Amino acid sequence: MDMKEGVYYGDYLQIDKLLSAQQLESDKEGNKHAHDEMLFIIIHQTYELWFKQVLYEVSSVMDILEQPNINDNSPDIFTINHRLNRVVTIIRVLVDQINILETMTPLDFLDFRNMLRPASGFQSVQFKVLEAHLGLRMENRHGKDYYVSQLRPNDVQAIKDIENRKPLIQLVNNWLERMPFFDGNEYWQGWDNKTNEHPFWEKYMELYGNSLVDGEKFNLKRFEEIMLGDEKKPEWQLSPKARRAALFIMMYRDYPLLQSPFGLMNLLLDIDESLSTWRFRHMNMVHRMIGMRTGTGGSTGKDYLRGAMERHYIFAEFAELTTFMIERNKLPQLSHALKTRLGFDE
Amino acid sequence: MDMKEGVYYGDYLQIDKLLSAQQLESDKEGNKHAHDEMLFIIIHQTYELWFKQVLYEVSSVMDILEQPNINDNSPDIFTINHRLNRVVTIIRVLVDQINILETMTPLDFLDFRNMLRPASGFQSVQFKVLEAHLGLRMENRHGKDYYVSQLRPNDVQAIKDIENRKPLIQLVNNWLERMPFFDGNEYWQGWDNKTNEHPFWEKYMELYGNSLVDGEKFNLKRFEEIMLGDEKKPEWQLSPKARRAALFIMMYRDYPLLQSPFGLMNLLLDIDESLSTWRFRHMNMVHRMIGMRTGTGGSTGKDYLRGAMERHYIFAEFAELTTFMIERNKLPQLSHALKTRLGFDE
Amino acid sequence: MDMKEGVYYGDYLQIDKLLSAQQLESDKEGNKHAHDEMLFIIIHQTYELWFKQVLYEVSSVMDILEQPNINDNSPDIFTINHRLNRVVTIIRVLVDQINILETMTPLDFLDFRNMLRPASGFQSVQFKVLEAHLGLRMENRHGKDYYVSQLRPNDVQAIKDIENRKPLIQLVNNWLERMPFFDGNEYWQGWDNKTNEHPFWEKYMELYGNSLVDGEKFNLKRFEEIMLGDEKKPEWQLSPKARRAALFIMMYRDYPLLQSPFGLMNLLLDIDESLSTWRFRHMNMVHRMIGMRTGTGGSTGKDYLRGAMERHYIFAEFAELTTFMIERNKLPQLSHALKTRLGFDE
Amino acid sequence: MDMKEGVYYGDYLQIDKLLSAQQLESDKEGNKHAHDEMLFIIIHQTYELWFKQVLYEVSSVMDILEQPNINDNSPDIFTINHRLNRVVTIIRVLVDQINILETMTPLDFLDFRNMLRPASGFQSVQFKVLEAHLGLRMENRHGKDYYVSQLRPNDVQAIKDIENRKPLIQLVNNWLERMPFFDGNEYWQGWDNKTNEHPFWEKYMELYGNSLVDGEKFNLKRFEEIMLGDEKKPEWQLSPKARRAALFIMMYRDYPLLQSPFGLMNLLLDIDESLSTWRFRHMNMVHRMIGMRTGTGGSTGKDYLRGAMERHYIFAEFAELTTFMIERNKLPQLSHALKTRLGFDE
Repeated sequence: MDMKEGVYYGDYLQIDKLLSAQQLESDKEGNKHAHDEMLFIIIHQTYELWFKQVLYEVSSVMDILEQPNINDNSPDIFTINHRLNRVVTIIRVLVDQINILETMTPLDFLDFRNMLRPASGFQSVQFKVLEAHLGLRMENRHGKDYYVSQLRPNDVQAIKDIENRKPLIQLVNNWLERMPFFDGNEYWQGWDNKTNEHPFWEKYMELYGNSLVDGEKFNLKRFEEIMLGDEKKPEWQLSPKARRAALFIMMYRDYPLLQSPFGLMNLLLDIDESLSTWRFRHMNMVHRMIGMRTGTGGSTGKDYLRGAMERHYIFAEFAELTTFMIERNKLPQLSHALKTRLGFDE
Repeated sequence: MDMKEGVYYGDYLQIDKLLSAQQLESDKEGNKHAHDEMLFIIIHQTYELWFKQVLYEVSSVMDILEQPNINDNSPDIFTINHRLNRVVTIIRVLVDQINILETMTPLDFLDFRNMLRPASGFQSVQFKVLEAHLGLRMENRHGKDYYVSQLRPNDVQAIKDIENRKPLIQLVNNWLERMPFFDGNEYWQGWDNKTNEHPFWEKYMELYGNSLVDGEKFNLKRFEEIMLGDEKKPEWQLSPKARRAALFIMMYRDYPLLQSPFGLMNLLLDIDESLSTWRFRHMNMVHRMIGMRTGTGGSTGKDYLRGAMERHYIFAEFAELTTFMIERNKLPQLSHALKTRLGFDE
Repeated sequence: MDMKEGVYYGDYLQIDKLLSAQQLESDKEGNKHAHDEMLFIIIHQTYELWFKQVLYEVSSVMDILEQPNINDNSPDIFTINHRLNRVVTIIRVLVDQINILETMTPLDFLDFRNMLRPASGFQSVQFKVLEAHLGLRMENRHGKDYYVSQLRPNDVQAIKDIENRKPLIQLVNNWLERMPFFDGNEYWQGWDNKTNEHPFWEKYMELYGNSLVDGEKFNLKRFEEIMLGDEKKPEWQLSPKARRAALFIMMYRDYPLLQSPFGLMNLLLDIDESLSTWRFRHMNMVHRMIGMRTGTGGSTGKDYLRGAMERHYIFAEFAELTTFMIERNKLPQLSHALKTRLGFDE
Repeated sequence: MDMKEGVYYGDYLQIDKLLSAQQLESDKEGNKHAHDEMLFIIIHQTYELWFKQVLYEVSSVMDILEQPNINDNSPDIFTINHRLNRVVTIIRVLVDQINILETMTPLDFLDFRNMLRPASGFQSVQFKVLEAHLGLRMENRHGKDYYVSQLRPNDVQAIKDIENRKPLIQLVNNWLERMPFFDGNEYWQGWDNKTNEHPFWEKYMELYGNSLVDGEKFNLKRFEEIMLGDEKKPEWQLSPKARRAALFIMMYRDYPLLQSPFGLMNLLLDIDESLSTWRFRHMNMVHRMIGMRTGTGGSTGKDYLRGAMERHYIFAEFAELTTFMIERNKLPQLSHALKTRLGFDE
């Protein structure tokens, strides 16, 4: 075999470039080699490589959802789900990777910790871009001002620029709003309504009210407030119309046409959950590593991380919808016309 | 081979008994079979089996620590660490098991959820006994009154009875207090002290103060407050004397005699961390399953779980000690006599 | 709250029964308590509980597939995939559980190992029933005779009885054979064929042959042998007709109607893979625990386990189909009629 | 804060360099972008980064063991165990990463598979260097000739050069051989011996013979062959003298001086086990991805990987030692002098 022809593993993966990108501060003149700094660098580099991959997948999903219309007979939703599932799989490995960093003891970290000031994992632009792409808004970030102060202006700008593109949650909201079944008259023949609500939701609200035990009745008011009506409050990520579509999908998910949309919403929740687990374990790890001292970036360490963990759930409005579900055997029967519409051509 | 002789797998494990302990509420007369109730029962049963094992290990560790003295030349600390490591390994699997419960969708749970009222995972006596054994005090429990109201009187009593035995953290505290090195005069010859502190800690406090950057100076006051002196405040789990021993171990852990004690403290932190991850993932799972509705036990669901998660760290006072560490190359040199004492016979 | 009413956690889960099912041989009169025997019992009991759950899911899937026909507009395939995914999630936890058993050292095992003779994990009837349900035939079992000799006659019979029911792989084979698209004349208008093959496969075989590099040409012969024709050889789990359907699904999986069937086949491979990982890690663990000694059941230990691991793949014929795929951009274009048939009603 | 001073996260980690090292073959002129090629590149790059870290740790451990003598009162063994434990933690994450690659379907891989020829994961020089460092010899490599033919001459040379350094297993062997306890006359007073064996092993062999059940008696012969005597056969990694020390440590590991050495041997087995799990899952993944086709590197794919998996256990001779253990309560009592020697100075 002639090695000059074709692709060679080491060239293809740019191994030389990759393996020459670890410069220890503790190996610089005047410092003393700190064995564990190599681990510190390499684990952060693998995180950044994976962030690139996650961004690549999320961005490709956004490309698909930015189309004015999604054809249910195209592979679009299938592809979206496949890629979001990959994102979840990656984040789960990122959570496990914390086990590796935890093999570094506080004393070993102290050997080089002060050499890194004021750098901080906090400055990962890719992670912030990811959060912004998913739907975290600058105004909702925990410790926003502090956060801006730690980044170079071009990095702040890069993150702000993201906000000019509709984030994933907004694209999903818009896709849900386009769900056509409630608008088609042919699907609701025989359904009365005495209010100005759609007959399905009028009926549903009654059933939901009946399902609540004492001490839960306030949920009915909440249902009315966030699920009915047309207005989307500025602080909401999802409009009432999109919420109705989402809840409908969650309950009638057994119909073929709704299976993939149901899967999509579950994957969004999986992303939120795995990301929040990452933040939680990261917070615990930092607490164990530096106690109550300030991080290398000058942040108040654990407290900052706790705030971010609690506030940076992005898809919580989807999770909240389960509050409004009723038992399957009490669900309103759909019309034959709608059942046909939700199925395969036969 | 004659099957009548010797042990038979199925008998030994009491498989018949085990596999006949799943009675679905939804299979009772008048109810409709809910497929996922089997999973719900079996996952809780595996949790209870593992809790039994964890309690068995923790209790055996407490037996060892309840001895008036621990001989460093006995296998005691080795055995303790081995068993605590097993506890951590088990808890990590318990965290992973949540993945299994998450294959149950909210709609599937609704099929039998109401049949279980008012039972609740909240009523696991073994889990509460475990927390009490480790060191969680009834008075520090989140939502204590509510908690008592949900259990049968004999179960409440069973948990209260635990508090008559010194919990693990107290036993560890007492073991740390017995660490002899600071008391032996022969180890500190030539160390001056101008205060009424032990010369080591007088020197250490000076070094620690120097290591603090601006904006961290308040830590010095905290050091004085919780590390020096003799008094143990009632709300503390660890006495200052035990804390000093623990910090000393964390910093001089390279000496043979201190390696296993260092391992022991790390394992306590691993237990806290893995248990808290379990609580965190459990909380997220419940939120996803029932949204903002009350749990089957009538608790406010997610909010209760969040409170417990935040307040039920048991070994946090060990984690806090890292706040007070200084760099290895600035550590005071120990005397030859002490170095010898910390090593093997030669 | 009145505790007498309603369901109580401890009663519901039969905790007392569950926690009284651990009788250590080493605690019997004349023996010496062996600390680790508790772990040995409990881990095997959790395995058995999970096997029950896996059997419950697999059996429910078989119930669905035993219907003479599966309506694509029913939730059937959705439900099957949901449950098989749960099975995979469970098996992955069972693999992780081996980490727990590995905290038992060989010396600790020796403390009670001889008391268990001749019992052996080998005698888990549920595991063998599971393998039989999935499709492992008695005649293909590694060390079949030995295997029969170790079980009580009624346990052997229980496993044999399973073989009277069509196993999962056979049910899937039959479902694949019913795939109607190749039979419908309307879908293949304009496709010539000069051989007695279906025009699609005639075309496909040509394309496949072109895609093979030198040294792979023998695959074309294999393609002809196992994919074309009507006869199913007795040693095959899948008929050529079912294989053709499966390969078609794997390649045109982007069409809505084929997405779930594609998912189903992937899940079968996930089951094979996770089960084989379990067998592999189990084999390594046993080797480490007892070296080259015979197991408590008298088996030759590691060698038996290796043989089972290598021979007990059940869905390997699905994995082999990837050998016969061609690049997506070279796939034959489907007719408009067929594309419509594979999509949603619009 | 002035961003120009101090360390900046992005610079420190060389993020720009890192994130510019992904050049897709499918993005080159004339080719069609294959979405999943990015994943393929990034996962291999993270593997290579982690291999660098593992090599860094293993090499540092070898540095320590290359000392002519290891002082038990130095932190040496503690440090070795800490780093080997990190290695195991990393490899476990590498195993989990396979889950990510499995989100790539065979059809998606085909989109760019042919563009990579003849590159192959097979050509990872770092992985082969790691195997060589641990102790795999070129002559024992599965498919050695084929293997050499696939690499550039300088890469082959790089791996061969490793063999000039004593591998880890050899260093451990030599360290075990230096264990002094059998040589010191003062430790064995009162022990008779009638053969030319050391009295401990004479006694031990008798006890071991008694512990064997029928059908295991051949193990006694094996014991004599590999454990006694002085000669090390060329095909052995461990000498009889080192094996005796290792077995002694495994059985008397409760004595303080032997605890860390026992830990070290366990970690070597953990490395073997986790590496073999990686190879096993990799083999399964490849089989699923390409079936029976040849790999991009021209290898026979699965068959090569199976051979490597079965033959590349490096520390199997340690695992085999458990074959020769006897029950703890039958172990010969050590003399008082030796017990003292194995403990701390008091």
